[in-house]
Amino acid sequence: MPQFRTIAIVGVGLIGGSIGLAVRQRKLSREVVGIGRSADRLDRARSMGAIDRSETDVSLGVREADIVIVCTPVALIASGAEDAARSAQPSAILTDAGSTKAELVARLDGSVNSVVAGPRFVGSHPLAGDHRSGCEFARADLFVNRTVVVTPTSASPAESVATVRGFWESLGSCVVEMSPEAHDRALAITSHLPHLVASALSAATPREHLPLTATGWQDTTRLAAADPELWRQIFGANRAALIDAVERFDHSLAAFRDALRTGDEQKLLELLEEAKQVRDALGS
Amino acid sequence: MPQFRTIAIVGVGLIGGSIGLAVRQRKLSREVVGIGRSADRLDRARSMGAIDRSETDVSLGVREADIVIVCTPVALIASGAEDAARSAQPSAILTDAGSTKAELVARLDGSVNSVVAGPRFVGSHPLAGDHRSGCEFARADLFVNRTVVVTPTSASPAESVATVRGFWESLGSCVVEMSPEAHDRALAITSHLPHLVASALSAATPREHLPLTATGWQDTTRLAAADPELWRQIFGANRAALIDAVERFDHSLAAFRDALRTGDEQKLLELLEEAKQVRDALGS
Repeated sequence: MPQFRTIAIVGVGLIGGSIGLAVRQRKLSREVVGIGRSADRLDRARSMGAIDRSETDVSLGVREADIVIVCTPVALIASGAEDAARSAQPSAILTDAGSTKAELVARLDGSVNSVVAGPRFVGSHPLAGDHRSGCEFARADLFVNRTVVVTPTSASPAESVATVRGFWESLGSCVVEMSPEAHDRALAITSHLPHLVASALSAATPREHLPLTATGWQDTTRLAAADPELWRQIFGANRAALIDAVERFDHSLAAFRDALRTGDEQKLLELLEEAKQVRDALGS
Repeated sequence: MPQFRTIAIVGVGLIGGSIGLAVRQRKLSREVVGIGRSADRLDRARSMGAIDRSETDVSLGVREADIVIVCTPVALIASGAEDAARSAQPSAILTDAGSTKAELVARLDGSVNSVVAGPRFVGSHPLAGDHRSGCEFARADLFVNRTVVVTPTSASPAESVATVRGFWESLGSCVVEMSPEAHDRALAITSHLPHLVASALSAATPREHLPLTATGWQDTTRLAAADPELWRQIFGANRAALIDAVERFDHSLAAFRDALRTGDEQKLLELLEEAKQVRDALGS
């Protein structure tokens, strides 16, 4: 027996497409509906096997859904969830896959979750992705053994949280719960800061030196190849925490710079060792 | 007919071991001699097929060599090349695989290359490697389609430069020639700076947040896992150029920070776009 009757995915790009592929491959739902603005892109998602049917109208697409996952770029998630909530069954559960949570969850607690009897929204962030965007890079195993952060609040009924947890676990993910604010502070350091640093490093490299790069530069700057508009939205939605994270990084960088300037080779070695200890604590 | 009679490799780690594997696989030399301080490590290199025979005494190891490649950590290259020059045939060519060139080449032009009739040293830097050290990670194809920078000076006879170029080309590499100083300025940006940035980012990450990292953090910090002592030596040997590179990066980082602080989303988008253009200019 499939776990869900109908799963609706709003925004069928890399993340939405990968969810669709995974749900269909694991037979978790009788039907997967893809919702988007471009009929062409929805057709491609269907021909890839990521969705069973498509709708360009949210209100039609979510009507029969038990669960709706909003996978649009960050700036469109709130309105996407609000649109979905207006047309979904009162028993429907809404979640998302966005990289920032505090602003979004506060807004949806005030709109969707303040309606007395209606669909409930619980925020999610799967820590899985790729620097490439688009359904053509979707993979059914994108979420396997990946962490998904679920961010309940006092406005989240326990059974809604359990449904969202169960959904991600059924894709093979490990779910952790955090407050939206704790999520944003941590992800500012573990995800948004690396992106900013990779971009700053890429931008600091004169093009005429590119032939003199090797795998080191390539690894360290890989994130800079991601979609600028997607990341502008993420940076904008987590501005305060990201500014703090950049300051934290600045202190770390300054320690290296000072050791270089003063020629303190012992200090330089200690800094490199500390950095290696953190990196090694993760494993490859 | 092999191109060389005897190739001697001083320091059989990742780079020296990969040279040995490549030379033997391509049958470029009748014999490959591995020279090192640890008989155990040399035994392992021989059992891997990276060398034909080993010597712990440089003077014995280089006696019959047409070409000697010094692949030790940066701080030991100069003395390694000087030791080799004292015992090698006058017709022998010496080169290295070190990440920094100006200090080293100036010293060896003053010592090895100032002897009237003796072996000649020409500096090299293969832009290939791994964040892991040791012969156990050596690969015969490490240099295929990789750039090798060769750094001749007025003290480098054209035929010595041609021998060194030919050596790397026979391993499948593309050789470019630059002055030692131009090499160090460029590599400060394309190699040493990414390493420093990756380390600073790793060190800035609280360990309790490591479970919230994904492929982005992992890629951006990968270099921080490298051997701290090897990189302390590289940073130390290219201090001035690296300080300039860090300043260049600092300006790039400051532009991102200022756009975040002022909430200038248009500027943020432009910065992300510029960074992507540089990254995309390289390809993956």
